[in-house]
Amino acid sequence: MSAAGGVAPTDSQRPDSDQPGGELPIGGSALQCRIADAAVDLFYRQGALATTVREITSACGLTPGALYNHFASKEELLYLVVRDIHLRLERTVTDAQRATAGDPAAELATIVRVYVGMNSGFRQRSRVANREYQLLTAERRAQIVAIRRRLRDRLTDVLLAGGRHGLFELVGGDDRAAATLTAVAIGAMCANVSDWARERHPLSVDELRDRYAEMALRLAGARP
Amino acid sequence: MSAAGGVAPTDSQRPDSDQPGGELPIGGSALQCRIADAAVDLFYRQGALATTVREITSACGLTPGALYNHFASKEELLYLVVRDIHLRLERTVTDAQRATAGDPAAELATIVRVYVGMNSGFRQRSRVANREYQLLTAERRAQIVAIRRRLRDRLTDVLLAGGRHGLFELVGGDDRAAATLTAVAIGAMCANVSDWARERHPLSVDELRDRYAEMALRLAGARP
Repeated sequence: MSAAGGVAPTDSQRPDSDQPGGELPIGGSALQCRIADAAVDLFYRQGALATTVREITSACGLTPGALYNHFASKEELLYLVVRDIHLRLERTVTDAQRATAGDPAAELATIVRVYVGMNSGFRQRSRVANREYQLLTAERRAQIVAIRRRLRDRLTDVLLAGGRHGLFELVGGDDRAAATLTAVAIGAMCANVSDWARERHPLSVDELRDRYAEMALRLAGARP
Repeated sequence: MSAAGGVAPTDSQRPDSDQPGGELPIGGSALQCRIADAAVDLFYRQGALATTVREITSACGLTPGALYNHFASKEELLYLVVRDIHLRLERTVTDAQRATAGDPAAELATIVRVYVGMNSGFRQRSRVANREYQLLTAERRAQIVAIRRRLRDRLTDVLLAGGRHGLFELVGGDDRAAATLTAVAIGAMCANVSDWARERHPLSVDELRDRYAEMALRLAGARP
């Protein structure tokens, strides 16, 4: 499991491995990625608790015991998948935000566009990541919660910077508590997209991104 | 189960039975309500799937078999609890909205204040209702989804009325699809409160209500 346990993508054969939709777990072997794909599909449809090792391996044409050649347990597999979905999102947000750094309105719109793109374009992964991390053991859950906090704090910092520069007028004032509440509301609104987005939704992913970015700017009280 | 199966409160001995925090199930006997309280507490902490009949009855000082004198099954108990939390919310929203009828901005603020009050003041119930209904059998789940749709449509109608009267400027235009998307965003933002609201949150329930009402008006593009 040392390969799949790494954080950075290590396989140059996979050009998309650094994208939100890239293979899971990051740096995993082809077979580990295939097992993880099958697991995400099952976790999405029936929850990780109700999913058996036999169902995961059977979906890959493997015997149940074969899973343990690649992951220590179903819980480790869940942990790696959930962690890497979060890490990919964080990486994508960081890169996108860098291009708009110093302009809080553009940064806010960019972050929201990444969230909504992820939650509508990769809704199975997003839903599994947002819902199933709560099943992890305390130490592992704490690691995921730490990534989620960093993402929320990133949004809070943008809102606070906009408020202090007079670009945003936050509900409740321009203090950190008000910025955090707005960040939480924006995060909830965006995460919810993975609950209902369908491939045949009347709005395209791009239209959803635009509308949610505009809604987030309204929540921030961005001056027109 | 005929008493607890009814929709309307039937027991005049319970003055709070028509409030969001009133006893569950609606119209249930005192012992049914005590069992349901214990069940909500357990469902909240560990999920309905992981909760056994033995744990529920044991929390009430009953033998496991005693549950079946009052409910046909754990699934029926979950259904009645989840249904009645939703029906109480709908009743409270309907009553509150009536007092502000004809003024879309006031109606929107009122509905959001009810949601946030419910999700912060009765967060265990809210979380169980929002999370565990997905475990119900198809027919029962469909009943809950129908109540949730009615609540969403109520919000959509208010947004649409405000848009058509030039009081709101919805993201994406003043058509029903735009109003629905805004209603979904507002609903998600409010429901999320039950994920984190704590008794010792620095903001009081009233302050949270005020801030979320203001955020909802911003999302609707309410004119100042």
